[in-house]
Amino acid sequence: MASAEPPVVVTCSAPVNIAVIKYWGKRDEELVLPINSSLSVTLHQDQLKTTTTAAISKDFSEDRVWLNGQEQDVRQPRLQACLQEIRRLARKRRSTQDGESLPPSLSYKVHVASENNFPTAAGLASSAAGYACLAYTLARAYGVDGDLSEVARRGSGSACRSLHGGFVEWQMGTRADGKDSVAQPVAPESHWPQLRVLILVVSADRKLMGSTAGMQTSVETSALLKFRAEAVVPTRLREMGRCILERDFQGFAQLTMKDSNQFHATCLDTFPPISYLNDTSRRIIHLVHRFNAHHGQTKVAYTFDAGPNAVIFTLEDTVAEFVAAVRHSFPPEANGDKFLKGLPVAPVSLPDELKTALALEPIPGGVKYIISTQVGPGPQVLDDPKAHLLGPDGLLRSRSAA
Amino acid sequence: MASAEPPVVVTCSAPVNIAVIKYWGKRDEELVLPINSSLSVTLHQDQLKTTTTAAISKDFSEDRVWLNGQEQDVRQPRLQACLQEIRRLARKRRSTQDGESLPPSLSYKVHVASENNFPTAAGLASSAAGYACLAYTLARAYGVDGDLSEVARRGSGSACRSLHGGFVEWQMGTRADGKDSVAQPVAPESHWPQLRVLILVVSADRKLMGSTAGMQTSVETSALLKFRAEAVVPTRLREMGRCILERDFQGFAQLTMKDSNQFHATCLDTFPPISYLNDTSRRIIHLVHRFNAHHGQTKVAYTFDAGPNAVIFTLEDTVAEFVAAVRHSFPPEANGDKFLKGLPVAPVSLPDELKTALALEPIPGGVKYIISTQVGPGPQVLDDPKAHLLGPDGLLRSRSAA
Repeated sequence: MASAEPPVVVTCSAPVNIAVIKYWGKRDEELVLPINSSLSVTLHQDQLKTTTTAAISKDFSEDRVWLNGQEQDVRQPRLQACLQEIRRLARKRRSTQDGESLPPSLSYKVHVASENNFPTAAGLASSAAGYACLAYTLARAYGVDGDLSEVARRGSGSACRSLHGGFVEWQMGTRADGKDSVAQPVAPESHWPQLRVLILVVSADRKLMGSTAGMQTSVETSALLKFRAEAVVPTRLREMGRCILERDFQGFAQLTMKDSNQFHATCLDTFPPISYLNDTSRRIIHLVHRFNAHHGQTKVAYTFDAGPNAVIFTLEDTVAEFVAAVRHSFPPEANGDKFLKGLPVAPVSLPDELKTALALEPIPGGVKYIISTQVGPGPQVLDDPKAHLLGPDGLLRSRSAA
Repeated sequence: MASAEPPVVVTCSAPVNIAVIKYWGKRDEELVLPINSSLSVTLHQDQLKTTTTAAISKDFSEDRVWLNGQEQDVRQPRLQACLQEIRRLARKRRSTQDGESLPPSLSYKVHVASENNFPTAAGLASSAAGYACLAYTLARAYGVDGDLSEVARRGSGSACRSLHGGFVEWQMGTRADGKDSVAQPVAPESHWPQLRVLILVVSADRKLMGSTAGMQTSVETSALLKFRAEAVVPTRLREMGRCILERDFQGFAQLTMKDSNQFHATCLDTFPPISYLNDTSRRIIHLVHRFNAHHGQTKVAYTFDAGPNAVIFTLEDTVAEFVAAVRHSFPPEANGDKFLKGLPVAPVSLPDELKTALALEPIPGGVKYIISTQVGPGPQVLDDPKAHLLGPDGLLRSRSAA
C-alpha cells in the first residue's frame, strides 16, 4: 500500500578490524564488558567491508533483517539488544531536542539488509564489521549522535572498535553499567601510510568453537587468562600505543606476535582446551620467524583471531618479498592467478639464500589465497541511492547475476 | 692385557616416567634446579625401559660410552656432570666407611653401555630413563648409597623421577645448592592396580625444538610460565597428591589434562612460540573429551610432553573401548596387526552411538601404533650375567641378529 510518508532509507559501510592487543573474555555477558582493554587496526574497506541499509516506514508491519541475501531471525538476542539500545538513545535525544527535522517515529518498524564484500567462507570474523555497520546505519536513520560504542558492543564486543578508522583502543572501563567501556581513536588512518596488511586465508578442516562460547569457558576455567588480563595487558597496551605513535615497526610487530600467542595460550589453558591454530597456522608462524631471522630484524608480524587464518603486518618495502615467501612455502594449487586479491603486489623472485633460510617443506594449497590491504577509515555514509540494498518497497533488492 | 684384578661389571634397568604435573623451566641451568615441583607416574619396564651396564677396570685407558650400540662422545657436559657427581659421592663415602669390601678405585676408567627396549623413532623422551639408569648403575658399581636425585638430575632434570616406581614427586627445593631438590615416592607401584597407560605414537613431520633449549626460552620470555610456576602449580601438586592417594580417577584425570594443556599454553606464550602438539595431537584431545562427554564422566585423560605423542591414562575397565575408539578415529594403515603393542587388550566393537558421538572424520595412519602399559617399579639390578651389555673385555657385546 502506498504511503504519504516515504520511508527513511540510509545505507552505510563499516570496516573489519584486527586486534593487536586481543580481547578475550567478558566481565559482564549481557552488557558485553571485557576483562581487559584491547587495541586494533582498522582495515581498508576497499578490500573488506560490510554494507548495511536500514529502512524505516509506518507501512512496515514488523522488524525484518537480511544478511548476505538471506532473511534472518530478527529475534536473535544480540540483534534485539542493538535495536533496543538505538531506540533508547533516539528516545533520549528526542526528549532533549527541539526544532530540528524530526526523525521517523520510534513506533515504526525497521527493515535492515546487510552484506559483506568478502566470502563468508573465508572464515574472517564478520560480526565486528556487521554490528558496527548496523549501529552506525541505525544511528543515521534515527538521527542519533554521540558515542555508538554501546550499541555496537551489545551486538559483538569487538564491533565497537570498527566505529573508527586507523588505530583504535577499546577501553575496558570500570563502571558496572559499562558507560565508560568505549572505543576511542589512538591514531588516524593517515598516521602510518607505510603499514600494510596481508590476510592469509587458510584451509580449515573442521568447525571451530565460536568465540562467544569460547571466551566464556576461558573466563570460567583459565587461571592464565585472568592473570593476563590483570597483570600483562595494561603494560602491553601502553607499549603498543607508544609503538604506534612512534611508528616503531619492530616494537609493534613483536608485541603483536606476542599478544596473539598469549591469547592462543589462554585458549589452550581453557578446559576443555580450545585450539584455533592448525598445522598450517603454525607453519606460517615458523615462516615469519625464519623470514625475520634471515633479515636479522623483525620485518613481518602475524596475528591470529578465533580461526586458523593469519593476518600479517609488514611495511610497504617488504610486502613483495614476503608474498613471494608465502608462494614458495604454500604453492598455489589451481588458482595461481587468483592467489593474490586486493592491493597489487609486484611479483619478485625469492633469493636462493632466503629459500634456504626458510627451510620449510612446501605445502601446496595450505594457504588458499592472500588478501592484500592496508589501514583504512571508519564507517561511511553511502549517499548514492544505487548503494541501497533495500528497494522503495523496503524489500531486498534482487541482485543482478555477475 | 690380562689383569689380576677383574673388572667390576654391573647392569641395571630403569623406567620411563610421565609427568602429570609438568616440569618446564630451570631456576639454575647448571645444577638443573626447576622453577616448580612436578609429579609423575613411573611406567612399567616390561614395555619401556633403559638397560645400562657399567664396567670399571684398571685396564681401561679412558672413559667410554655407548648408546643403542653407537659410541658417543664422552665429553658431553651432562654425561660429565653425572660422572663427576657419582665420583664425588663415592669419594665422600669412602672417607666415612671402613671394613666393607672396597669398591673399585676412583682413578680407574669406566665403560658404560646403554640401550632402550623401545625405538628412538617413537619420539618418546628417553633421557629420563637413560640418566636414571646411568645414575643407578654407576652408584651400584661404585658402592654409593643414598639419594641419587642429584646425579640423575644433572643428566636430565626429570630423570630423578625415574629413580622410584609408582607415583613420584620431584620437590623443587629452595636451597641454592640444590640439596633439597630431590625425587620422593608419593605412592608405590602397587597402590592403584586398575590404572592403565596407553602411549599413542603419532606421526610427526618435522623436527621439534629440544626441551632444554625450549624451557630456557620459556623462562626468559613467558610471563604466563612464571605465574604458573608460582601461583598455579603448588595448589595443583597438593590436589594431585590427594587424587592419587584416594585413587580419585576423575580428579586425577581432569587435573592431568589441565596441567598438560597449561604446559603447552606456556610453550605457546614463549617467544618465538613453541608448538609440540600437531593436528593429530589435537584430534586425540578432541577424541578424549568427546569420549568422556558421551559417558557423562571423565573416563580417559591425555597428557603430552615435548612432542606430539599422547600418553593416555584410563582404568582397566575402559581400556578396550578406548582402544577401539582410537582404531575407529585413526584407522591403522599397513600394520593393523602390529597396531597394539605391550599389554594385551581385548578387541571390542564400538557401539554405534559412541561412533556417532565421536563425530570425527577418521584420519588413517594419524596414530602409528599404541603401546599398552601400566604403572611399574623403579630401577632394578639385573643379576643375570647374560644381561650385561659389555663383555669381559669391557667392549660392547655383539648382539646376535634377532
